[in-house]
Amino acid sequence: MPEQTVVDKIKLVKAFLNATENVLTMMCFLECKTGKPAVKDTESKMGDVIGVIGMTGNQISASLALVFPKNALLKIVGNMLGEEFTELDDDIVDAVGELTNMICGGAKNELAELGYTFEMAIPSMIRGTCQINYHKTAKPVIQTPIGIGDEEFWIEVAFME
Amino acid sequence: MPEQTVVDKIKLVKAFLNATENVLTMMCFLECKTGKPAVKDTESKMGDVIGVIGMTGNQISASLALVFPKNALLKIVGNMLGEEFTELDDDIVDAVGELTNMICGGAKNELAELGYTFEMAIPSMIRGTCQINYHKTAKPVIQTPIGIGDEEFWIEVAFME
Repeated sequence: MPEQTVVDKIKLVKAFLNATENVLTMMCFLECKTGKPAVKDTESKMGDVIGVIGMTGNQISASLALVFPKNALLKIVGNMLGEEFTELDDDIVDAVGELTNMICGGAKNELAELGYTFEMAIPSMIRGTCQINYHKTAKPVIQTPIGIGDEEFWIEVAFME
Repeated sequence: MPEQTVVDKIKLVKAFLNATENVLTMMCFLECKTGKPAVKDTESKMGDVIGVIGMTGNQISASLALVFPKNALLKIVGNMLGEEFTELDDDIVDAVGELTNMICGGAKNELAELGYTFEMAIPSMIRGTCQINYHKTAKPVIQTPIGIGDEEFWIEVAFME
């Protein structure tokens, strides 16, 4: 893949990272440290809950995944709902659906202002110690770590070739 | 939800079931026994690999998931690729992306003939012992068991309210 194409895609990813920062700050009252976006290598991060949503449009066809290890997720949802959680229950999984929807919706609004439009599919949430990969037509997949205190989770945006 | 709406949605699900039968027969040389589609209750089936793809359109916004226990998947992909597999490796996960794409594409063609059109997002494949759920806007979720000999997997189609 030409470097320029990856650079272009990383610009689009910024909208998802901005939306994530907004949601974490405003809905979860958490400061976050956004890492450097990079093309995902073959090794997938392990999550305990993954939120995933598809997008289709003329200029952008993509997939957003939020890969949450247990402790990062308990912290985020605990802050969002104002309760202390110690286990991954149905409320936590539902909250991942909401986070996925809000972050994708925020990015959709920012990208629309830049002239990129797309439709969002239904978010799904996968629970279990698991990894996400994409169909071979997904190139590049851009992965970014998000730090919240001592915990970390990952945002992946996969673009269709 | 009015019963009529569920009945209408089950008619749409038939296109996904027909596509699954076609793919299993023609690409995997397997006879399959399609069970009765039913509204998914709160209990999710456990899979070892899940393929998921979003769809957006004017008349249909939906998500398709194929939930594969290990042994069912080894049998399907082994038949498809003409090799014997005993473990869930990268080739198996890639094949799930292909199966998800082919089944959704087959349903897209059949539904287009009935006047329902949608765009397909990028398929993603989740590996690990896991369960799938959907954002609360997904109603109904129709789940259908597919038997292949002694093994079984599940097709879920979630519609946006």
